[in-house]
This record gives sequence, structure tokens and C-alpha cells, in this order.
Amino acid sequence: MHPRSAQQLAELSAEAMLSGDPASTRLGMVVEEVRPGFARLRMTVVAYMINSHNICHGGYVFTLADSAFAFACNTYNRVTVASGATIDFLAPVYLDDELTAEASEQALGGRTGVYDVVVTNQRGKNVAVFRGRSHRLQGSLFDESGKS
Amino acid sequence: MHPRSAQQLAELSAEAMLSGDPASTRLGMVVEEVRPGFARLRMTVVAYMINSHNICHGGYVFTLADSAFAFACNTYNRVTVASGATIDFLAPVYLDDELTAEASEQALGGRTGVYDVVVTNQRGKNVAVFRGRSHRLQGSLFDESGKS
Amino acid sequence: MHPRSAQQLAELSAEAMLSGDPASTRLGMVVEEVRPGFARLRMTVVAYMINSHNICHGGYVFTLADSAFAFACNTYNRVTVASGATIDFLAPVYLDDELTAEASEQALGGRTGVYDVVVTNQRGKNVAVFRGRSHRLQGSLFDESGKS
Amino acid sequence: MHPRSAQQLAELSAEAMLSGDPASTRLGMVVEEVRPGFARLRMTVVAYMINSHNICHGGYVFTLADSAFAFACNTYNRVTVASGATIDFLAPVYLDDELTAEASEQALGGRTGVYDVVVTNQRGKNVAVFRGRSHRLQGSLFDESGKS
Repeated sequence: MHPRSAQQLAELSAEAMLSGDPASTRLGMVVEEVRPGFARLRMTVVAYMINSHNICHGGYVFTLADSAFAFACNTYNRVTVASGATIDFLAPVYLDDELTAEASEQALGGRTGVYDVVVTNQRGKNVAVFRGRSHRLQGSLFDESGKS
Repeated sequence: MHPRSAQQLAELSAEAMLSGDPASTRLGMVVEEVRPGFARLRMTVVAYMINSHNICHGGYVFTLADSAFAFACNTYNRVTVASGATIDFLAPVYLDDELTAEASEQALGGRTGVYDVVVTNQRGKNVAVFRGRSHRLQGSLFDESGKS
Repeated sequence: MHPRSAQQLAELSAEAMLSGDPASTRLGMVVEEVRPGFARLRMTVVAYMINSHNICHGGYVFTLADSAFAFACNTYNRVTVASGATIDFLAPVYLDDELTAEASEQALGGRTGVYDVVVTNQRGKNVAVFRGRSHRLQGSLFDESGKS
Repeated sequence: MHPRSAQQLAELSAEAMLSGDPASTRLGMVVEEVRPGFARLRMTVVAYMINSHNICHGGYVFTLADSAFAFACNTYNRVTVASGATIDFLAPVYLDDELTAEASEQALGGRTGVYDVVVTNQRGKNVAVFRGRSHRLQGSLFDESGKS
């Protein structure tokens, strides 16, 4: 047993998040990187995400951004949930697009935080910007005592 | 061939939306009612929507609200997309919850509109409020000439 | 000394708010009505509120809505502040317009709440919709012991 | 008469904005810098901006951010207005605080844009983040023909 670095906490928090998260994994999301207050996720747009206008349903773009936000605000091993979010859709997203969502902490004070997420496609174009507000609850994501 | 009422336009628009929308139907959404500028959808929270905090991933709550918004702003047979949205999560959503999303038009001027969506659970409790901004594109959802 | 009704609490809270609020009164705002979770304010658009596009600066429309929100969420004699807000501008506001802002509580749970504000002009047209998130702090607006 | 650089356009646009803008100047705002898609403004918090909680009314913080946004999105000599905005208040603002608002363009496509504004105090602490959506109208801010 030994003290863990902030980076170790971030990685173990992400592992704990992923292990019980069918919501994100079922959509094919991959967690590419986590650091304290930061996360980058990737997702490919597949057929069932397409709506009647032949573009990706905004709900899936939001869900990717929201997951990146969740991973970023849960890098301190403190259970943290979203209290709300705003999204602006900047460009249409199409079938087979490879989306990347980068979430970074803008502010964290008391039990609330603000995180910005930028979603880009495979050509590096910004397709959406998202801003989430987080709220920390009681409890931790995993046991830090060293026994686990 | 005959002129269609606003209510007929709303219902035919919803049919056209649904027919090509795997995004909403795959999640089990049911369109319960459409009127000009209004839509009510229902969705049951199933296992794959649950995240690591044992509550429904906010992305699925957003997706339901966003779909209700899409049906409400596409009741005039004019292709209309979301330019952005804000969501506030008011209460946790659990496995097996039956969610209802009611979307109603608050404003429509020029090519842009504002729609409010309230998401309630089976006990009538508000679990989320959503506000979407719509943007009308060129084109219609179905052929109004009477041939179809 | 006697217990106060919710309506009395609301009115005394508004009085306490107003007595120390040069921000709202200096802009000519009038509090027309308060009830628990509700407030209606009025403001006339004067010359210094006009911007270079010859319409009212959005900041003043926001400020009116934000004040209505503040009065509505401070009707329980508990010090409550805004943690954030969203505004959508629906129609231009001109010199001499008489604006009315009605704020009503959508949700209140724990220490946070969500309030909707609709701003209308003298012709009853909606010129803006606002949604504010409130956060309750420690402390009360006035002494409820009956001595005051 | 000669073609103007993007920077010259930005500066002349800001001049045209300022010359007819009592809304911003009356609050003591100073435009410190403009570049294409960017603006930085400064404002000191004075007594009449203080509310009954002894902090700066959120409306004035919003108004500063909204003005920075307006200057940033009007740097191309095309009349551009706000269609909406979101603000998150991160820390209280007090009497005599020196606020700086930096607005930068996140996206600009067709007639709509998204701008982020960060408001900091004299100690460099972020007190608010703001995200505005712009909408370009017909018309220009000043005559580019060279006669003026």
C-alpha cells in the first residue's frame, strides 16, 4: 500500500467507471486518455445513430460528449454526476464519421464544476461544443485503502 | 387530392420522420401524440442505459428529449434540425423507469424556433427539463402534392 | 409574534431583497407581484439601454429576467443565488418598450432549483425566455423571530 | 481608398460599435483589444451594481460578457446580434473588483457563430464563463467604400 499520484487516481477512477458502464461501451466508445480533470473519448457513427434527415441523431453526439464529461469529472475518485449541460451543434455528423470528444475542466469549487467538451470529426472539424455542470455526491468510485 | 389540415400535416410529418429513424425506434421510443408544434414520446429505461453510478446515463434522457423536440419542430412538413439545446437534470432516473417527454413550441419566428421539453417518470415527477433551438433548412419531409 | 404564511414570507423576503438592491431599482424595475416561487417585475427600456444596432442591449433584458428569477427563488427567506442561466432572445426590444418578466419555479430539490422566466413587451409578445439555476446558501433574508 | 486588412476592419468595426453604444460605455466598459473574432473588455464593479446579497448583480457580469461577445462577433463589419447565451457564475464578484472579459470565436459558419467569453477578476480568478450564439443580419457597421 502506498499513496497514489493524481494520475494513478485518474486512471483507476476511469477503470472503475468503465467496468460498470454499459451505456458508454455499448455505443462503442473508447477512452483514449484520462488525466486529472481531463478525458478524451472516441466513437464511430454507426447506422442506428442516423435519423430521418440522414445525419447522426444529436442525442448520440450529446451522449459521447456527456460521457467524456463524466470521465473528466470523475478523475478524483469522488462520485460526481451531471446537473446539466448545454450543447451547440456546429456541423452535421454523418454515417461512419469518427468522432473524438475532449473534455477539460474549466472550474472546480466546492462540490460543483464546469467542464468544456469539444467534439471533432476525423478531419479535425469541430462538430459540437458542450458545457457541463458537475455535482459531487458522497462516496468514492473505488477503495483507496490499498486492499483492492 | 385536397388541402390538408395542420393536424394532418403534423401526423404525416411524424410518419415521415419515424419511417427513417432507427435512432429513436431502436431505443424503444413510442410517439404517443403529435400536434402542430407539439409532441409527446415515451421510453422505458433498459439495462444498457444504466451507467456506473447505477442511474440512467444522461445521454439517453437527453436523446429522448431531443427526439420529442425533433418531432415537435418537424410538424409543419419543413425539414428542421436542432442547432443547440440545454438540459437540466432534476432527479435521478433508474432502471425500468417509464419516461415521458412532452415538447411544446415556445417561439417560432423566421427560420428559428425555441421548444421546451419536460421529461417525467411514471410517478409524474419531473426528472429533466430541456430547451432546444431549431433551425429550418430547405426541403420538406414528404410530398404534399397529393400523389403520395 | 405568530407563524407567518408562505405568502407573508414571500412578501417580506421581497421587501428585504428590495431594500438593499440598488442594482434592480436603479434600472427602474418595479416588483409587481410575488408569491412563493413566483415573481413578476416590470421595466421600461430607456435611452442608455440602447446599443449601436438601435435595439436594447441584451444585457439589460437579461438583467431584468435575472432579477425576476432572484425575487422568485428568494421567496422562502433563505438566501439563494444564481449559479447560472440561459437566455434566448426571440424578438428585438426597442426604446420605450415596457417589459414584463414573469419568473416561476420549475423544480426545487435540496439546495438547487430551476426557474423559468418569460419576458414580454407591452403588446404581449415574448421577447426572451430565460432559465436560471439557483443555489441556496446559509442564512436568511430577514429575522423571522417576530422581533422585527 | 485601399483594401483594408482584417485587423483594420476589426478596429473600425469596434469604433462604429462604440460610437453608438451608451449601453456599454455608461457602465464604464473599456475596450482593451479587438482582433478578428476576438475582443477584450474591462469594467470596474461600482456601488449601483451590488445586490441585496452584497455581491455584484449577475446581470452586470452578464452584460460585460455580452458586450465582449458583441464586439468579438462584430469584427467583420457585418451587423451581427446575439440569438442567445449561457452563463455560469463560478465565484462571487464584489464591489471595486476589476473585471476583464475575453471573448473568442469558437465557430463561425453561414450566418451563425459561437463565442466563448471568460470573465476574470483582478487576481486572475475566473468568475464566470459565458457562451453566446450570434446571428448575422443584413447590413454593415460602417461604409467600406473609402469615403468615410
